[in-house]
Amino acid sequence: MRYLSLRFITVGAIAALAGSAYANDQLIKMSQNPNDWVMPARTYDAQRYSPLKQINTGNVGKLQVAWTFSTGVLRGHEGAPLVVGNVMYVHTPFPNNVFALDLDHDGKILWKYEPKQDPNVIPIMCCDTVNRGLSYADGKVFLNQADTTLVALDAKTGKVAWSVKNGDASKGQSGTSAPFVIKDKVLVGISGGEFGVRCHVTAYDMKDDKQVWRAYSEGPDDEILIDPEKTTDLGKPVGKDSSIRTWEGDQWKIGGGCTWGWMAYDPQLNLVYYGSGNPSTWNPSQRPGDNRWSMTIFARNPDTGIAKWVYQMTPHDQWDYDGVNEMILTDQSINGRERKLLTHFDRNGLGYTLDRETGELLVADKYDPKVNWTTGVDMNKNSPNYGRPAVVARYSTEKPDVNVADICPAAIGSKDQQPAAYSPETQLFYVPTNHVCMDYEPFKVNYTAGQPYVGATLSMYPPKGETNMGNFIAWDGKTGKIVWSDPEQFSVWAGTLATAGGVVFYGTLEGYLKAVDAKTGKELYKFKTPSGIIGNVMTYEHGGKQYVAVLSGVGGWAGIGLAAGLTDPHAGLGTVGAYAALSNYTSLGGQLTVFALPQ
Amino acid sequence: MRYLSLRFITVGAIAALAGSAYANDQLIKMSQNPNDWVMPARTYDAQRYSPLKQINTGNVGKLQVAWTFSTGVLRGHEGAPLVVGNVMYVHTPFPNNVFALDLDHDGKILWKYEPKQDPNVIPIMCCDTVNRGLSYADGKVFLNQADTTLVALDAKTGKVAWSVKNGDASKGQSGTSAPFVIKDKVLVGISGGEFGVRCHVTAYDMKDDKQVWRAYSEGPDDEILIDPEKTTDLGKPVGKDSSIRTWEGDQWKIGGGCTWGWMAYDPQLNLVYYGSGNPSTWNPSQRPGDNRWSMTIFARNPDTGIAKWVYQMTPHDQWDYDGVNEMILTDQSINGRERKLLTHFDRNGLGYTLDRETGELLVADKYDPKVNWTTGVDMNKNSPNYGRPAVVARYSTEKPDVNVADICPAAIGSKDQQPAAYSPETQLFYVPTNHVCMDYEPFKVNYTAGQPYVGATLSMYPPKGETNMGNFIAWDGKTGKIVWSDPEQFSVWAGTLATAGGVVFYGTLEGYLKAVDAKTGKELYKFKTPSGIIGNVMTYEHGGKQYVAVLSGVGGWAGIGLAAGLTDPHAGLGTVGAYAALSNYTSLGGQLTVFALPQ
Repeated sequence: MRYLSLRFITVGAIAALAGSAYANDQLIKMSQNPNDWVMPARTYDAQRYSPLKQINTGNVGKLQVAWTFSTGVLRGHEGAPLVVGNVMYVHTPFPNNVFALDLDHDGKILWKYEPKQDPNVIPIMCCDTVNRGLSYADGKVFLNQADTTLVALDAKTGKVAWSVKNGDASKGQSGTSAPFVIKDKVLVGISGGEFGVRCHVTAYDMKDDKQVWRAYSEGPDDEILIDPEKTTDLGKPVGKDSSIRTWEGDQWKIGGGCTWGWMAYDPQLNLVYYGSGNPSTWNPSQRPGDNRWSMTIFARNPDTGIAKWVYQMTPHDQWDYDGVNEMILTDQSINGRERKLLTHFDRNGLGYTLDRETGELLVADKYDPKVNWTTGVDMNKNSPNYGRPAVVARYSTEKPDVNVADICPAAIGSKDQQPAAYSPETQLFYVPTNHVCMDYEPFKVNYTAGQPYVGATLSMYPPKGETNMGNFIAWDGKTGKIVWSDPEQFSVWAGTLATAGGVVFYGTLEGYLKAVDAKTGKELYKFKTPSGIIGNVMTYEHGGKQYVAVLSGVGGWAGIGLAAGLTDPHAGLGTVGAYAALSNYTSLGGQLTVFALPQ
Repeated sequence: MRYLSLRFITVGAIAALAGSAYANDQLIKMSQNPNDWVMPARTYDAQRYSPLKQINTGNVGKLQVAWTFSTGVLRGHEGAPLVVGNVMYVHTPFPNNVFALDLDHDGKILWKYEPKQDPNVIPIMCCDTVNRGLSYADGKVFLNQADTTLVALDAKTGKVAWSVKNGDASKGQSGTSAPFVIKDKVLVGISGGEFGVRCHVTAYDMKDDKQVWRAYSEGPDDEILIDPEKTTDLGKPVGKDSSIRTWEGDQWKIGGGCTWGWMAYDPQLNLVYYGSGNPSTWNPSQRPGDNRWSMTIFARNPDTGIAKWVYQMTPHDQWDYDGVNEMILTDQSINGRERKLLTHFDRNGLGYTLDRETGELLVADKYDPKVNWTTGVDMNKNSPNYGRPAVVARYSTEKPDVNVADICPAAIGSKDQQPAAYSPETQLFYVPTNHVCMDYEPFKVNYTAGQPYVGATLSMYPPKGETNMGNFIAWDGKTGKIVWSDPEQFSVWAGTLATAGGVVFYGTLEGYLKAVDAKTGKELYKFKTPSGIIGNVMTYEHGGKQYVAVLSGVGGWAGIGLAAGLTDPHAGLGTVGAYAALSNYTSLGGQLTVFALPQ
């Protein structure tokens, strides 16, 4: 009956449906179409799971390259293309070109957007000139440029519908994250944690460049959009001035907490989830206190920006363990009870599962056994330290000018921005991880607007006695256990795709696209793409055929040595030395490779 | 019996064979091994034909991509990689990096050579920052850098064994062509015809950087290495001062005749063949005379450099019809007589077949029916104009400041550097052609060393009433007839490969690798590589499997608009406007794509 009635609703009628709900409803519907890929993680729950199953464990070994496309830009290609109907939208690192490619004609270029940006933004991009991709809604494609310009492009023509400056590059603010559309708003974060930027998430009206709300990560309650009475932290109201009372003086004004990661959204709960990054500077003794709300998961009402709950993973961070990694929303049963969950693999090496409605902490366990900076999180609800990780004293970096060795994970974390995926069939998370430790020596640094505000010297290397710098793991978020683990020579810096075909895809820094069995981790297929992969694997169906696509282009924080031509091992905040051997495997590039089964 | 005796000759014994003949014999032997590809055209005869036939007309439709490699360099990628045993050597445009890739491990990088070159050489490269590839001999890889440095690299380590400056970039001299090894010498040409360079071919001792001989294209007999009594032109001695008496005053000193094309060699005749380019300037009224020996095929003794014969295709060029295109050596029967032939598809639109021993002209016919600047070549041996093309007066550009319209072909020729192939089985040549006409307006220009010395403004476009700007044709060199012709939207700027499998391969500016039936031209396979193809297709066998490889990377003269970001239609010496639509199909890149049949 529902189907019958829908048949009589014309497209025009749908478009005429009540204002603010429209884009949301349409986006939800579009994201449920397995043929398309309309937002960074395909669906609002950020599961990066596709119901497509033409490619499955039985035939993925026969996968072949269908067509390819060079972006014409070198350096690190993070993120994934979007597919909407017959059109694929591909983005690039700085200068942030966008291509609309015709899927009916091997990727013929329908239009190209080439912003003119001041190249002076490049030196303030800490970890390569990356961009994490686009969002689509209501006939527009949204791009967060390096220079913090948020641009709405007409999806048909590539013409700029509107644009707005979200920050100020001269103060070290930059744009690297993907915009995120909820209802009639475009939400966008900002980067600059290594430049003392006080970061925020801002919502703009999707129709124009009007700012609707802005929520800082630190500062007074009315600027962080926290209600002292109603916003909770582990079930309790945060109270007045929850942020500024955890900073000395007005250090919160240059406090970091950047918002360059991924967002997820629960339409039923009407909550958007994202994490904030490191407190500035990296020298912890310069900023006493818990430095709230850096390193925090926020659950906010997207209409108002007001936080419903918060949870800080790493109070008073001493290791640059940004909390920006993705929040994956799943409905699973824990101890016989169906729960709305949020799972988050933090840079600090702990995999967290929370109740996403209340922010209750359910699981916090190491997803790399080598993690040593903490003995674990206090899970005793009656403890004053409830929810707080216990820091192992010898891995504290609190003393300036003291080099602390063998901290695991390194600052790049047990995982960085490379997003994990979840399969509702196996109820497992597929997590691309780093397996890297570090020496960390903090030093005093003075703040100058627009100048680096790091204050630490780092070296990175695999855990002692090991050579592999990464693992691709399957994780049970209900129990906090690794189910299987595939070692990789280098960190897995590419995002994962899980599919109904029982196949999980990921990319490697050497440039391989790999397909493994979701149940066992057994490698079923691999292919050497032109350059190292730090993009996220996606899939779509076109003309009755399933395709798998990924951007190659080595770079990002792990690949910054290759990307920027750096050789000092301490450069790249410590990654250049660690990943020096990458140059034996791959070279800079910027290519899309699209795979399919043979005819 | 031969096999048995060879078994007892050790590698050491072979290496100990008499000095100067060694590399030559070894190279001939190596080039006869169909698994390898040791010189630019595979074999000395420049046929670009491979006896491999695992991939054939019956199965080429199932071809798939085996692995890929990004060079990390954008702009035009001309030339082809070499394969010697388990190693593939890949070159790039400026800065002319060289990679040694391990074929046993999907192209793992064994070594990388990254020359430091002054970027001031870029503006003097008329037609993109291209490089046409490497040569291999005696454990060394030879590279002709943009800055004219000829480098010998140890093939095992990539270390520089020796290097020598072949020219002076401050005077507009640059290096773009592939070196060519004959016996114990490395021969190398030089570019700069748009800068009034007096060009030459130079032979260096393969063991070190010692110059053995240098043969200019213009000048006194002892500098052009022509023996007035013995060197012949169409059967007759050229006589004293054959070059300088065809120039006014000392204009020959800035006379062009550059040597940036391909070479071929006949070991039995001990003759090396190559062509010289346009006379400088492009304004013909400024340089009266035949401007010898620009636009000339040279047959020289590689030991001494002395020319045995010469033939000038386009005396007193008025259209920039460089004569540098490849010389393909074949043994075919003409009128019942077995002859040693040389076939050459000139920029001027004529396909020439000569007796390569004597330089006798046998065939000179249009390989694009639209060629209109000449009614044809006088083939009457008793005519005073024997061997000379008859110029159609209305297409002469002799009058300065007069715009002459609709000249066919355009300055880029009916074919440019993109080399043709020949199959001894079909006895046909497979020719990647341009199908483009032009307006040409010469103007007075003054010579200043290191500055452009062109003196003409050009527009290019497809022939009136047509839209395709290229054809891929099969040509009978014995009769001078087109056997079949496949139209292409853009000029075919990629080099051809013919194979014993009955399949001919070429690339397109949009980025397709195409395979066609050698007999009929029927398309059997196409694949969209990351970027436009101006490289030359090659093939090799490794581990019992035949591979086909090609470099993508749009650019070159045809693609200079995209490559250098030019938009003025007259820029790029007229190509920017003609090929503007290319930007709808492809973007800059630099990738190797390697194809094979499925497992």
